[in-house]
Amino acid sequence: MSKLEEKTLHSEEIFTGKVISLHLQDVELPNGKQSKREIIKHPGAVAILAITDDNKIVMVEQYRKALERTIVEIPAGKLEKGEEPALCARRELEEETGYECETLELLTSFYTSPGFADEIVHVFLAKGLTKKENAAALDEDEFVNLEELTLKDAIQYIKEQKIYDAKTAYAVQYLQLQEAIGQK
Amino acid sequence: MSKLEEKTLHSEEIFTGKVISLHLQDVELPNGKQSKREIIKHPGAVAILAITDDNKIVMVEQYRKALERTIVEIPAGKLEKGEEPALCARRELEEETGYECETLELLTSFYTSPGFADEIVHVFLAKGLTKKENAAALDEDEFVNLEELTLKDAIQYIKEQKIYDAKTAYAVQYLQLQEAIGQK
Repeated sequence: MSKLEEKTLHSEEIFTGKVISLHLQDVELPNGKQSKREIIKHPGAVAILAITDDNKIVMVEQYRKALERTIVEIPAGKLEKGEEPALCARRELEEETGYECETLELLTSFYTSPGFADEIVHVFLAKGLTKKENAAALDEDEFVNLEELTLKDAIQYIKEQKIYDAKTAYAVQYLQLQEAIGQK
Repeated sequence: MSKLEEKTLHSEEIFTGKVISLHLQDVELPNGKQSKREIIKHPGAVAILAITDDNKIVMVEQYRKALERTIVEIPAGKLEKGEEPALCARRELEEETGYECETLELLTSFYTSPGFADEIVHVFLAKGLTKKENAAALDEDEFVNLEELTLKDAIQYIKEQKIYDAKTAYAVQYLQLQEAIGQK
């Protein structure tokens, strides 16, 4: 197995924002030559596959400025500095949907765009949902519409490209797999 | 259903690189207030779930500078300007693995990080693989090790966090689902 590591020769922070920062790096490649890497740093995020007692998937419709359109996603949000992912998942679920959950289980974690970003998403399964009377508020620049979908609806939303992002595609496929295993 | 659109008041291109560009936008929120959005533009990408005749998944181990480590992924690559995703998939599969494929089927497409980036990944299923004698070369700054995994190996790699990215997690789960459906 050949050595693949790329050594950092120089790193410059081009931009620091409230969500991401951009770093331009000069690297030494495994063959000794040099190249440049454009790297986005992100605090990481959680996403919550929340299932109601009548077996609906809790989703939020949200305008995504990067796409200039709304898409329907499982609830998600950025980790605060030093925040435990499970706590963040409970907070985001309540903020975006008004639901508290009894059980929360980490399904998986993955990097979303390893070619240029270090964003990791921790995907949780939440069950035992109860609607809170006085739910925590959304962030002041966040606006969402709540939707509760059957698995069949969600698969249809994928076909119609209303559901169109990696974490939600993964979560819907996870439920399809559970259903298929259960039906064996 | 409330209106969710965010209008662009001002957009500034902060950085343009060879892979991504960074745009800082002032937006008007649905409630009339203003906020800022940090947007990464990316040309889009393809990923290829390639299955050998003896039912192995073709993967590449690659150093990801954003993560400062290697991970094992299904072959993938950026779209060239105006390039048809299916052609890009055939090109990237050959460049990264030396395999040509007989059949290529689009499984799904998804945005990887809709909160800050417009990167879309088109995931293809490739079958009927044959190794080319004189395979097209990798990009000059690209170094990979080829691995061919059973589905069981791939699931183990996910547990060990050797496989750790969204497109590959989706692809492995897709095969689990096919197996579960087939076993019904």
